[in-house]
Amino acid sequence: MSHPLVNARIRAIPPTVPFVGPEALTRKTGHVFKARIGANESVFGPSPKAVAAMQKAAAENWMYADPESFELRHAIARHLRIAGNNVVIGEGIDGLLGLSLHVVLSPGDTVVTSDGAYPTFNFHVAMHEGRLVKVPYRDDREDLAALLDTAQREKARVLYVSNPDNPMGSWWPASDIEQLMAEVPEDMLLILDEAYGDTAPVGTLPPVDVNRPNVLRYRTFSKAYGLAGARIGYCIGPADLIAEFEKVRNHYGLNRVGQLGALAALEDQDYLIEAVARIARSRERIAEIARGANLAPLPSATNFVAIDCGRDGAFAKQVLDGVLARDVFIRMPGVAPLNRCIRVSCGADENLDLFANALSETLAELR
Amino acid sequence: MSHPLVNARIRAIPPTVPFVGPEALTRKTGHVFKARIGANESVFGPSPKAVAAMQKAAAENWMYADPESFELRHAIARHLRIAGNNVVIGEGIDGLLGLSLHVVLSPGDTVVTSDGAYPTFNFHVAMHEGRLVKVPYRDDREDLAALLDTAQREKARVLYVSNPDNPMGSWWPASDIEQLMAEVPEDMLLILDEAYGDTAPVGTLPPVDVNRPNVLRYRTFSKAYGLAGARIGYCIGPADLIAEFEKVRNHYGLNRVGQLGALAALEDQDYLIEAVARIARSRERIAEIARGANLAPLPSATNFVAIDCGRDGAFAKQVLDGVLARDVFIRMPGVAPLNRCIRVSCGADENLDLFANALSETLAELR
Repeated sequence: MSHPLVNARIRAIPPTVPFVGPEALTRKTGHVFKARIGANESVFGPSPKAVAAMQKAAAENWMYADPESFELRHAIARHLRIAGNNVVIGEGIDGLLGLSLHVVLSPGDTVVTSDGAYPTFNFHVAMHEGRLVKVPYRDDREDLAALLDTAQREKARVLYVSNPDNPMGSWWPASDIEQLMAEVPEDMLLILDEAYGDTAPVGTLPPVDVNRPNVLRYRTFSKAYGLAGARIGYCIGPADLIAEFEKVRNHYGLNRVGQLGALAALEDQDYLIEAVARIARSRERIAEIARGANLAPLPSATNFVAIDCGRDGAFAKQVLDGVLARDVFIRMPGVAPLNRCIRVSCGADENLDLFANALSETLAELR
Repeated sequence: MSHPLVNARIRAIPPTVPFVGPEALTRKTGHVFKARIGANESVFGPSPKAVAAMQKAAAENWMYADPESFELRHAIARHLRIAGNNVVIGEGIDGLLGLSLHVVLSPGDTVVTSDGAYPTFNFHVAMHEGRLVKVPYRDDREDLAALLDTAQREKARVLYVSNPDNPMGSWWPASDIEQLMAEVPEDMLLILDEAYGDTAPVGTLPPVDVNRPNVLRYRTFSKAYGLAGARIGYCIGPADLIAEFEKVRNHYGLNRVGQLGALAALEDQDYLIEAVARIARSRERIAEIARGANLAPLPSATNFVAIDCGRDGAFAKQVLDGVLARDVFIRMPGVAPLNRCIRVSCGADENLDLFANALSETLAELR
């Protein structure tokens, strides 16, 4: 029963939480995690220059941040060789996904996504009264052709694609995404979530082209840049569509310290390259651990690896629970057949040693 | 002309910006402000313990914050002697106002506020398709009786009241607010914005009573706590209504550093008391400066003082512009008759010396 003051649209939404945090698991079970490799954060952290910038900014945190995020927005624009008005900053990609739907969606409009893709996106679709249509993954990848076909057939207003994708870590080369962008009808918005773009092989991200009127692309400082706690994401697109975010965004919603951290992180591309290399080595190590346990790691372009546990979702859940019970925080996909996997974020060697032991003990127990 | 993908409700909203920041003024005019006393921030800053906590947190900013904000939420609850599920944290009061309307308002619902009160609230009403009805201030205070009468007559879904109020700095004693709370009909939500409650005289804030089913109260770390850049506000209310925010809030939207800063600030009540005393002395000094310039300072329970310039809005705007041109950032109310005033935030002595000179030079020039 909802509170009587709640409106009909919100009353219709079931109370769901997209992701339970590790802190909540600890409060529930008493387990204090020794390795935190479940939320696709970067244990390698942000650039030391970003940390220094944030420490300096802490003493100045009595000031609101510039509501136009001018410095950061223009630094991103310069980095991408676009104009400042092609960029809007938000409280992570999550916040920007919600704002995008607020701008574009009308009640009852159809939104197409992959079954098992980002639950937080679906959460935003529900609160903006969209009708969600899900397309199965194919061979553990988002099925671009089926997504487009379904979106056209269902006259969708919005099509959501992530590349590389979460939770499987798979990806399409830029040429396939470019073809998709070219084929999406004019009256449909393509939301292209590139949260994991920084860790993908060269040739995965199509060149930025803000002249496409119906494509918005989303990137973040939460993953390779190592600033998940800062909550700074950005959306890139045509200036006239980006301008509409001004009507719905929380102009003073962005924290000062995080923005200055993101700016310093962006300016330290050498560190980013190093972090991406460490992430790549960590992916290899996770794959080795999986193979050593007779499980099948999936190829990944992200900062995590999905490991196929070889049986059904119930079995993978047992593996997950065993690893969690051994104080290693990981997650797993929520939907079949993806949920035959567990999902392990990249970590430092000591994190992965703990994971390897936890996995091996768990599998021994389950045998 | 809106972008063709924009939905009808957003297309109908004119492109407005609630508040232009001082950084944008500097970019536009070239003036670098020597005193920043226009946005009701606290130049006295947060507790040194909060700064230390934020500096420590900066290095851990690779981790998402707990999406349940458990520690901070429960610390606030303990402080107010209520339960943790009577509190929701958001990206400043601004963010929480938007979420509240998303939960409660249906398109076309009426919302009553004071004419000249918080523009950001009105901005949120517009984006949630509310019908805004404004009630004039009376004797430079929000007119509680007329607000309630109007809300009842117009069958409003939401009534917005701030106490103390912005931009005039006036306030009602707790007994009047309690009477209002008792009289608001059951099917109407009272949004009670207490952003400036920490600087108000004892007896201004009614006791917290989360058993009132239709009252939500909003507080912040941005004002007396000196953490405007952290973007941490909170909303207090009945558990069943607070629970509905889970359906619309950005669960991972709150930055880690800001939350840890807010927690440390909350725990340093001695510093808060000192800051409030400095704010009170600064209010006195602003009033003296105004009187010395033959202008009339209004009584204030906030961290700013509205100064009646004695003529119309056009004249006050000239005063404002003169002070801005002398590199002192202040603001003024936007609506007559409030706009016969300028609004000056509390500052350190050196800030107010600059203001005194700028004001005196401006008035000499205008005479």
